[in-house]
Amino acid sequence: MALKVYLSGEIHTDWREQIIDGAKGLDVEFSAPVTDHDASDDCGVAILGAEADKFWHDHKGAKLNAIRTRKGIADADVVVVRFGEKYKQWNVAFDAGYAAALGKSLIVLHGPDHQHALKEVDAAALAVVEDPAQVVRILRYVLTGDLS
Amino acid sequence: MALKVYLSGEIHTDWREQIIDGAKGLDVEFSAPVTDHDASDDCGVAILGAEADKFWHDHKGAKLNAIRTRKGIADADVVVVRFGEKYKQWNVAFDAGYAAALGKSLIVLHGPDHQHALKEVDAAALAVVEDPAQVVRILRYVLTGDLS
Amino acid sequence: MALKVYLSGEIHTDWREQIIDGAKGLDVEFSAPVTDHDASDDCGVAILGAEADKFWHDHKGAKLNAIRTRKGIADADVVVVRFGEKYKQWNVAFDAGYAAALGKSLIVLHGPDHQHALKEVDAAALAVVEDPAQVVRILRYVLTGDLS
Amino acid sequence: MALKVYLSGEIHTDWREQIIDGAKGLDVEFSAPVTDHDASDDCGVAILGAEADKFWHDHKGAKLNAIRTRKGIADADVVVVRFGEKYKQWNVAFDAGYAAALGKSLIVLHGPDHQHALKEVDAAALAVVEDPAQVVRILRYVLTGDLS
Amino acid sequence: MALKVYLSGEIHTDWREQIIDGAKGLDVEFSAPVTDHDASDDCGVAILGAEADKFWHDHKGAKLNAIRTRKGIADADVVVVRFGEKYKQWNVAFDAGYAAALGKSLIVLHGPDHQHALKEVDAAALAVVEDPAQVVRILRYVLTGDLS
Amino acid sequence: MALKVYLSGEIHTDWREQIIDGAKGLDVEFSAPVTDHDASDDCGVAILGAEADKFWHDHKGAKLNAIRTRKGIADADVVVVRFGEKYKQWNVAFDAGYAAALGKSLIVLHGPDHQHALKEVDAAALAVVEDPAQVVRILRYVLTGDLS
Amino acid sequence: MALKVYLSGEIHTDWREQIIDGAKGLDVEFSAPVTDHDASDDCGVAILGAEADKFWHDHKGAKLNAIRTRKGIADADVVVVRFGEKYKQWNVAFDAGYAAALGKSLIVLHGPDHQHALKEVDAAALAVVEDPAQVVRILRYVLTGDLS
Amino acid sequence: MALKVYLSGEIHTDWREQIIDGAKGLDVEFSAPVTDHDASDDCGVAILGAEADKFWHDHKGAKLNAIRTRKGIADADVVVVRFGEKYKQWNVAFDAGYAAALGKSLIVLHGPDHQHALKEVDAAALAVVEDPAQVVRILRYVLTGDLS
Repeated sequence: MALKVYLSGEIHTDWREQIIDGAKGLDVEFSAPVTDHDASDDCGVAILGAEADKFWHDHKGAKLNAIRTRKGIADADVVVVRFGEKYKQWNVAFDAGYAAALGKSLIVLHGPDHQHALKEVDAAALAVVEDPAQVVRILRYVLTGDLS
Repeated sequence: MALKVYLSGEIHTDWREQIIDGAKGLDVEFSAPVTDHDASDDCGVAILGAEADKFWHDHKGAKLNAIRTRKGIADADVVVVRFGEKYKQWNVAFDAGYAAALGKSLIVLHGPDHQHALKEVDAAALAVVEDPAQVVRILRYVLTGDLS
Repeated sequence: MALKVYLSGEIHTDWREQIIDGAKGLDVEFSAPVTDHDASDDCGVAILGAEADKFWHDHKGAKLNAIRTRKGIADADVVVVRFGEKYKQWNVAFDAGYAAALGKSLIVLHGPDHQHALKEVDAAALAVVEDPAQVVRILRYVLTGDLS
Repeated sequence: MALKVYLSGEIHTDWREQIIDGAKGLDVEFSAPVTDHDASDDCGVAILGAEADKFWHDHKGAKLNAIRTRKGIADADVVVVRFGEKYKQWNVAFDAGYAAALGKSLIVLHGPDHQHALKEVDAAALAVVEDPAQVVRILRYVLTGDLS
Repeated sequence: MALKVYLSGEIHTDWREQIIDGAKGLDVEFSAPVTDHDASDDCGVAILGAEADKFWHDHKGAKLNAIRTRKGIADADVVVVRFGEKYKQWNVAFDAGYAAALGKSLIVLHGPDHQHALKEVDAAALAVVEDPAQVVRILRYVLTGDLS
Repeated sequence: MALKVYLSGEIHTDWREQIIDGAKGLDVEFSAPVTDHDASDDCGVAILGAEADKFWHDHKGAKLNAIRTRKGIADADVVVVRFGEKYKQWNVAFDAGYAAALGKSLIVLHGPDHQHALKEVDAAALAVVEDPAQVVRILRYVLTGDLS
Repeated sequence: MALKVYLSGEIHTDWREQIIDGAKGLDVEFSAPVTDHDASDDCGVAILGAEADKFWHDHKGAKLNAIRTRKGIADADVVVVRFGEKYKQWNVAFDAGYAAALGKSLIVLHGPDHQHALKEVDAAALAVVEDPAQVVRILRYVLTGDLS
Repeated sequence: MALKVYLSGEIHTDWREQIIDGAKGLDVEFSAPVTDHDASDDCGVAILGAEADKFWHDHKGAKLNAIRTRKGIADADVVVVRFGEKYKQWNVAFDAGYAAALGKSLIVLHGPDHQHALKEVDAAALAVVEDPAQVVRILRYVLTGDLS
């Protein structure tokens, strides 16, 4: 068994690297959105032309990023959604709902402060964790049965 | 043509009533989550038994509410998602993603302050508005062609 | 909102009647398998001709019953699966898996003795209850928001 | 032609090994749940944290195991479900229903004592056998046409 | 419970009328292809213009008839396919395969002479009968549990 | 049998009225896009706010119209696409492709001058006609078997 | 581009070999049912145990063969159905209907005598041919654009 | 991440070569229709036999080409549709609608003159560009995050 895992969520800490490093040796193929904040925000106007209105500036970028995001989620067996301490992160909750509707196995990663606010997202998940190392342990167990 | 419309979002203002009142006379059937805040939070333990741990308290409730939420979205032609000024409202973004993955027509209702944070949700929508009255005008136009 | 509810499970107690009676006045349409034990066992040979071999006797009957069972589950919004004290009841667990794969909202009804043996079925459910009255309360809450 | 085969069922005899050994040389890729009983029961709390309540202890584990189980069934062409002499094995019947709803080819493996109790599961299958060696013969015939 | 039943098959005997008459009082909605042989053969050229080549003459007609046939099968819960004594009746076997792929409950109606030639069609069915009265008994049992 | 029919295509002649009038008495429910040219072009900015850039002006309008168009096609059994003498009419060909991918029965209505340019659209259709009266005859035949 | 092609139909002439030989060098992966007539007829009882009744003898075999047939059709891009001069060949028409409902590209191969009887099957096809060499030319053209 | 990209549209300029050349080194697999104009027009009669009527001549060819076109679109993650200066190009708009209904990421490539006429197609797209080099930049950004 091999797993495709999409890593959705905040881009200000190294949680993706922790998971990818920890999962070395496991049969996992990871994907993720573009995590360069400036590139992600400005890709639309950079390629498709400038916009005077911020709404359309953002709109063009969000649609380009959707090509990658939707492909990543559609191909995934497991979608990990990570909510950090700051920001609204509505795109992450959107990804979680999108993944849930497609029947993907959902793992939610967040600190205890967000527990109540994320109860609907957590209720759609197969696992709720606080630490990237737990995601690694889940992937190892699912693929190998190893709990060590 | 008749439309089924699901109204997802904050429960602290009367935006749902404004839309439902404004749409009187149109062939629209509305549905929505339970909007009694206390009932929504405590339904799980009230029916299924108390939990010492807040996580499971919330978990039971979120799952009961999901019976209604999923039915409402699955049956809808149009899903309106409303983001208010306060709170995380991740469940609303989750509903938006869920609806988008099912191919529902999405209308997003939010103030200008949230524009950048909601760009991915807006990019999946067929209309982005600031005022419930605009939702009514959309429903009237879609059903009757009337722009007045 | 109206709900279609399929009631799968044991036929030796009056749990279906309790739910149907309790839900009087709610906008629910119930369906269920044929609950006449002898008819359900012998329908195949009664209509399609006798079989010397018990396997084919049962096979013909199980397939006729499947016409009703699959229709009931496919049309349902909510599938309630009831596990009684006795018998293997593998058909009930089969219905639960069938319903889960179709994305139906699942409610599991069983006593505490079966908790460990049903953990995989419970894990796929949106509610786990011990008493038919709880199913009625869930249906009332989902349809009306009333927790009384 | 190559086949993906998921082996669901009891973990107390070596029926999986018999099938996998017998199928050596055939173009079959097998998958299965975690078959270490203790790991399977305790994986949830081991990774996600202890629970005082047995229900949630089991719930966490069953959900983690579901990541593997659903992936295995979703990817499979053929799902073999094995019912042993003992235990309720409702998870196996659940897997059978889940696989049937997804249109997978189902092979049921059980002794004659369970014939009547499994009639609905058998009625959804393309083959019902008593011996793992018969599963091997089916796989060989399906892939090569060889009946020897 | 109500059933939609599509009646596919030969048009030279009154088997449809026998079923429809026998099912009076049951909650069944029947549909069927156009059973006027000449109209069915010539509808294409009658409406769309004459063709010199018999292939295109038939092609136009078969496509017009497909509008009705596909609608009837797509909407049906149960598809009855009737094979008479004469003719190739490949369109009936085509309808059976089409219905099977859509997961419809299939009932096959044919005499004993065709048993071996129809074994693949019968293997996809939930019931195989020889007499229209048996179809009526099946519909009555499925809807009411009545075996009389 | 009843049919839902969506009428896509040019809005400069009375072809829709001819079909709807001709089909009086048949069990057909028609739907169509908004056919008021100015309303259709300007609905977006009228409701959602003015745009300096013609692209976004049109974009907002096209998306509002899509709420109606997609609902109409999704609900239809039959989609009629009408190509007039003038204009590019790419939205009509887009609707045809959209309908074909959803498996709808497609009827194409165009004059002989467009035959070669529409060959791929015609090849996906169940009928190709030149005159609205032929669409009426098709609907009557499909619903009643009447060829008169 | 690579194509998966399933070859359904009569097993008494070498039409499959002609196509497979002719397509040498093209990026095509062929699959087909078991074409050993005796093995195909008797596989069920050979592996699953003898049956006194010819119906169940055939039933067991047809279901085993369905494991291969359904896998072959489900995986195929193109399904070729071949109708020979003799026999009822209802299983071939069943495969054609099954493939059509799944949206597969259908090629029908038959002599002119069967034209009228196969009009519904031909109407669902993207090509109708009389000679296996034409199937090879189609595959070559589709993959390479070469018409030579 | 790797992408499958289908290139639909006019065959009179070298836009496909520009994209394929520009994307060298990226993990992209391209597919496209047969772009030899004469072969594409005449393939049907060349392989399947001559037709006196131009409609059927074109019909046979369009259906053969559909085997390739549908496979290409069905397998694609991204569908690029290119509208040139001349011709009706209804097949391109048809492909766009077909791709949109399947949920593919759509990129539309056209000059400013066609903006108003293509507003419905553009509204279904994730990017609208004027130059093949922009398609290359999109593919590079989506796959690598590189905006240079």
